Amino acid sequence: MTIMTRFSSWLDHRSGAIDMMHGSGGRATAQLVTELFVRHFDNPLLAQGNDQAAFDVAAGRLVMSTDGHVISPVFFPGGDIGCLSVHGTLNDVAMSGARPLYMSAGFILEEGFPLQDLDRIVASMAAAAREAGVPIVTGDTKVVEKGKGDGIFITTTGIGIVPEGVSISGDRASPGDKIIISGSIGDHGVAILSRRANLEFETEIRSDTAALHGLVAAMVEAVPDIHCLRDPTRGGLATTLNELAQQSRVGMRISEAAIPLKAEVHAACELLGLDPLYVANEGKLVAICAADDADLLLAAMRSHPLGAEAQVIGEVVPDPNAFVQMETTFGGTRIVDWLAGEQLPRIC
Amino acid sequence: MTIMTRFSSWLDHRSGAIDMMHGSGGRATAQLVTELFVRHFDNPLLAQGNDQAAFDVAAGRLVMSTDGHVISPVFFPGGDIGCLSVHGTLNDVAMSGARPLYMSAGFILEEGFPLQDLDRIVASMAAAAREAGVPIVTGDTKVVEKGKGDGIFITTTGIGIVPEGVSISGDRASPGDKIIISGSIGDHGVAILSRRANLEFETEIRSDTAALHGLVAAMVEAVPDIHCLRDPTRGGLATTLNELAQQSRVGMRISEAAIPLKAEVHAACELLGLDPLYVANEGKLVAICAADDADLLLAAMRSHPLGAEAQVIGEVVPDPNAFVQMETTFGGTRIVDWLAGEQLPRIC
Repeated sequence: MTIMTRFSSWLDHRSGAIDMMHGSGGRATAQLVTELFVRHFDNPLLAQGNDQAAFDVAAGRLVMSTDGHVISPVFFPGGDIGCLSVHGTLNDVAMSGARPLYMSAGFILEEGFPLQDLDRIVASMAAAAREAGVPIVTGDTKVVEKGKGDGIFITTTGIGIVPEGVSISGDRASPGDKIIISGSIGDHGVAILSRRANLEFETEIRSDTAALHGLVAAMVEAVPDIHCLRDPTRGGLATTLNELAQQSRVGMRISEAAIPLKAEVHAACELLGLDPLYVANEGKLVAICAADDADLLLAAMRSHPLGAEAQVIGEVVPDPNAFVQMETTFGGTRIVDWLAGEQLPRIC
Repeated sequence: MTIMTRFSSWLDHRSGAIDMMHGSGGRATAQLVTELFVRHFDNPLLAQGNDQAAFDVAAGRLVMSTDGHVISPVFFPGGDIGCLSVHGTLNDVAMSGARPLYMSAGFILEEGFPLQDLDRIVASMAAAAREAGVPIVTGDTKVVEKGKGDGIFITTTGIGIVPEGVSISGDRASPGDKIIISGSIGDHGVAILSRRANLEFETEIRSDTAALHGLVAAMVEAVPDIHCLRDPTRGGLATTLNELAQQSRVGMRISEAAIPLKAEVHAACELLGLDPLYVANEGKLVAICAADDADLLLAAMRSHPLGAEAQVIGEVVPDPNAFVQMETTFGGTRIVDWLAGEQLPRIC
């Protein structure tokens, strides 16, 4: 906070807006960083005011993941771009089985973006980071001219440490393995799209945005030899299963009836012409494990609030074409292909 | 590369452009990642195709730093946004004395951005990463609608390991310490601004963009107890010295005559009405060390190609106001204040 001592005026959070000076690297940038970012993120590493954060780590297997966030609108039922940018990266780290340690955040702000909105977003990031127990220890802010951005983009990066004996990777699915989803699909994408389309439903559909590393820790403790974990974000469950099938060179057979889907999300998808299999999730994960481990893993998931509705949805089969096939509720079978076009732009 | 097996067509690198599908998370995203990013960055961690990279580290002090890059124009004399985004983050990591280990890259692309330009930029990043010996092991790509971005923004994050016994921080400058700059100032900012203003000089002014971790390694080996290191990017040398003075609660006295400045950069600054002290650098560093160590450090710097023109430019003095004062070439003394406004928008 020493950097503040020579500033004469404070940011006008109520009616102020981002201007090009906030990206200059000079006094206005320092003021924004100190009064807004450092104040909310409030941790000793960030407060040191260096261009990098330093911390001690034990020897081990580290993971690193990054995610850009360009979601529109930035505020939506169940969350905002701030908490989403924390959850998104924590989840990518956690999908290796790792315990997240630290995060960084890079902001690209458009000239004219209201400081009040920025403050609300940064407060939401800080709350999400605090709740997750993973501090944001370093960051960066750039400003672009009006019309050269869209309010706010946030790129977060996380690092974490993988527990001994855990080796989760997308190429480890084997025929006979069980495929488990942690809960209902499509909530996030439908929440965003409903807001864009100004649709109102009897029950508000809220994004499922959440940090999954606590659930993953419980899962890894119960079954250290989970084969694959992935969060079905952009492109939805269909795309995630296809990615895993490709990486592992296997096929998959899933059952439509087994996939949890909220009635209101189902209804909204019908109204909007969406296939929920392709709709983004931000608080769900797909796990693949040996058949013998499935009951234990399912029980561990169901004991955690974020996995209470976990279901086995299918199994891995041999298939040189790496097709994902689904038994439909009508009794037929269809191939669940990759998302080919752009169903929902800027969903995260 | 397994992800390619089911794609029927290849990206049209010559006349193609980014469209919204490339951000969908579906097949088009996978194709872009595989044919462009993975191909250029070419390393086994990235090729695994997981949403995170995993690697082993020894116990020790780790650093993490992130930097967003929004420079305009994206191609400029001496570099482009690609190599700049690698150098910028490597340098922030290196300014702790650390040896950079791995990097991540997050891309925010505007619909319509030519694939040919993207290819050139990613190739430049890959070359810079290879030359630095620091692989880009994980990444992310988002696409925004035309008019909601500006071609390409790149946010890179780096991690590195600090050698035993090194403890460099902005709050360690003490009265009596010497202040050293690694070479001439203002080259990067003037190169960008000349390009924007379509100015031509007899000698082309090129950005000094470079990765400084090799220079830092040589410096730390010669003088492990360097007190402060910082790269004077946005806001220039003046802003960096003010930041360090504030953090350490000391004053500084520098000599204008001692600061290396190329004649053509000097001339361009006069023409453009710029004070070179505030102009961004992308391949220079400021070092502060005990007076007794200064000769040794200077010699180590001058033995490295990126520090050949290193100079002692002043010293740290006691000052409760943390002022940076400069003896001018005219014999007077003036206060070198923080950059107050926005001198050069989108310089990095």
